[in-house]
Amino acid sequence: MKDCCTLAIDAMGGDAGVDVTVPGTRMALERHADLRVLLFGDSATLEAQVAGFPAPLRQRLEVRHAEVAIRMDEKPSQALRKGRRVSSMWLALEAVREGEAHAAVSAGNTGALMAMSLFVLKPMAGIKRPAIAGLWPTMRGHSIVLDLGATIGADAEQLVDYAIMGEAMARSLLHIEQPSVGLLNVGVEEIKGVEEVRRAGRILREAVLPIRYHGFVEGDDIAKGTVDVFVTEGFTGNIALKTAEGTARQISDFLKRELRATWLTRLGALLARRAFRRLKEKLDPRANNGGIFLGLNGIVVKSHGGTDSLGFANALTHAREVALYDLVDKINQDLAAKKLMAEFLDSRQENGKPPLRAYGAS
Amino acid sequence: MKDCCTLAIDAMGGDAGVDVTVPGTRMALERHADLRVLLFGDSATLEAQVAGFPAPLRQRLEVRHAEVAIRMDEKPSQALRKGRRVSSMWLALEAVREGEAHAAVSAGNTGALMAMSLFVLKPMAGIKRPAIAGLWPTMRGHSIVLDLGATIGADAEQLVDYAIMGEAMARSLLHIEQPSVGLLNVGVEEIKGVEEVRRAGRILREAVLPIRYHGFVEGDDIAKGTVDVFVTEGFTGNIALKTAEGTARQISDFLKRELRATWLTRLGALLARRAFRRLKEKLDPRANNGGIFLGLNGIVVKSHGGTDSLGFANALTHAREVALYDLVDKINQDLAAKKLMAEFLDSRQENGKPPLRAYGAS
Repeated sequence: MKDCCTLAIDAMGGDAGVDVTVPGTRMALERHADLRVLLFGDSATLEAQVAGFPAPLRQRLEVRHAEVAIRMDEKPSQALRKGRRVSSMWLALEAVREGEAHAAVSAGNTGALMAMSLFVLKPMAGIKRPAIAGLWPTMRGHSIVLDLGATIGADAEQLVDYAIMGEAMARSLLHIEQPSVGLLNVGVEEIKGVEEVRRAGRILREAVLPIRYHGFVEGDDIAKGTVDVFVTEGFTGNIALKTAEGTARQISDFLKRELRATWLTRLGALLARRAFRRLKEKLDPRANNGGIFLGLNGIVVKSHGGTDSLGFANALTHAREVALYDLVDKINQDLAAKKLMAEFLDSRQENGKPPLRAYGAS
Repeated sequence: MKDCCTLAIDAMGGDAGVDVTVPGTRMALERHADLRVLLFGDSATLEAQVAGFPAPLRQRLEVRHAEVAIRMDEKPSQALRKGRRVSSMWLALEAVREGEAHAAVSAGNTGALMAMSLFVLKPMAGIKRPAIAGLWPTMRGHSIVLDLGATIGADAEQLVDYAIMGEAMARSLLHIEQPSVGLLNVGVEEIKGVEEVRRAGRILREAVLPIRYHGFVEGDDIAKGTVDVFVTEGFTGNIALKTAEGTARQISDFLKRELRATWLTRLGALLARRAFRRLKEKLDPRANNGGIFLGLNGIVVKSHGGTDSLGFANALTHAREVALYDLVDKINQDLAAKKLMAEFLDSRQENGKPPLRAYGAS
């Protein structure tokens, strides 16, 4: 798996299916000369769709037949029953497990994709449950936020694992050598957060992990980009993400309406259109499309189901970057280092030396 | 306490203290002819500040001396030790307890104010821990969101109590006869939220409470204003609020920068300035200033510590409105109705009838 990169694509996933995934794949092949793709889905449909591709692109693409397409509204249990070994989603994941592809990408339903990913790729050794990590546009550029809703309720050790995985992802996607990591917490004096968050903070501060731990951060630090990696439990992470998306949409809708209100504001909007175009680009969810499942023995990228071909192409670009970086290997190394450190500190403690940190002590 | 309204004001609280609270109080007295205030703080300072007030305002204002002012950075425990019975914050709360005022307002530190409120006013019968509720501007107008961080981690019964209290607050502040209530949850198929949220949902759906329960809502529903009252646990609520505030600031900062970029965008911004003024008003945190502590035997309104006199005046207006509505009495009636309902259903269950709902069963 050294020559980068082959992506396994669930071509049937997403609200618009092949009408988005195939043109998106074409864009990504045009962007990256080193990219190869395996397209899983109904082969007749797919062959017809890619027939018009120029030969140099067509050569880097292989269609693989899948009998079944998972619907967007299917429950994970239904999807597993119906799609095991035969669906485009499952087969794309299997290609990663078998070493044929470096990452799988799907715009299909999140619950089904997570359930199948757990089934096919299995969690990494030492990881209890995976997380979904996303790119978040900030005032300083981009940060990574996780967990965006893969797992609900995380204990201190899970939060530390998220920190390790998110940090590796920041190195690969944001190209930062030593990303800073913060734990989301609340600022009200009296309470200062849940016990698990406080414990995770102690572990990250006291453990000799190779992580630049910043400390606690609050909700408004995300937009400021105070740290490169924001770590929180999945319930809060999911609600924070959707609240921010809702707020951004609310403001741009409001502004659009107000700019249309009089002929003067309409003229002003016309003259200042460069500023609005830049704002639109900044807020464009397609630019940051692609949540990355972390903590599995393989990379899975979840594209937004309602995105268009440009958004899907961006998800493929993100998948290529984390694959280029060997993200799974890097995380495994970091987790192994953490384990060694914990064992060393445990033995130190057994020998009557004072503990250096709380990690592993529950 | 029938003639509305007397507010007890901690004049020493907030980043700027009397320089904001006194002019803010003056604005509120000018706005509301029925308003009376008790101003707690250093009497020499306060008397000097209010000396210039016109007589009709001065007559509705009484200065009461307090030896001690609680600092913004003091821990709740410190504040209690130092400020008990002698601080402007404590004495304002005491005025509510003694029936001299209908509500207390402070821009002082949140942790200290919550600790003192619990001490002086005590939680309502049947309420374990109070919540902080706030007004949230939406695409449809305003909604109420709680808990914004008073209490971390709520069980199902606490969430139901938040629903009851938030609903009463929506009736008083939003003037809606039958406000709709939603429980914040995550939308990822596989997991569908924490057990406590699901249980609270069952209780609200099945219990015969006089509440228009909408169901689960997601983070982006807040900006849409899908329901009038959004209920969640304090950790998530606090992070959602600050994430939204951060996002709004990020977008307006970005837009400001882009509008200054060229002479054309500057001209456009000038012509369309009406739209930007309206956006600024819409996003103005002063308009929604004043988090309301719910679940205590008395009303306490927490103004933002960094607000100006207009913001402080708005917090006083909100305090007046909930006092006018007899919010505490209304919540007590609703809680009593809930308790009666639970007893009726319990007796029904004891008599071998099938349970109608899960409330009270833990």
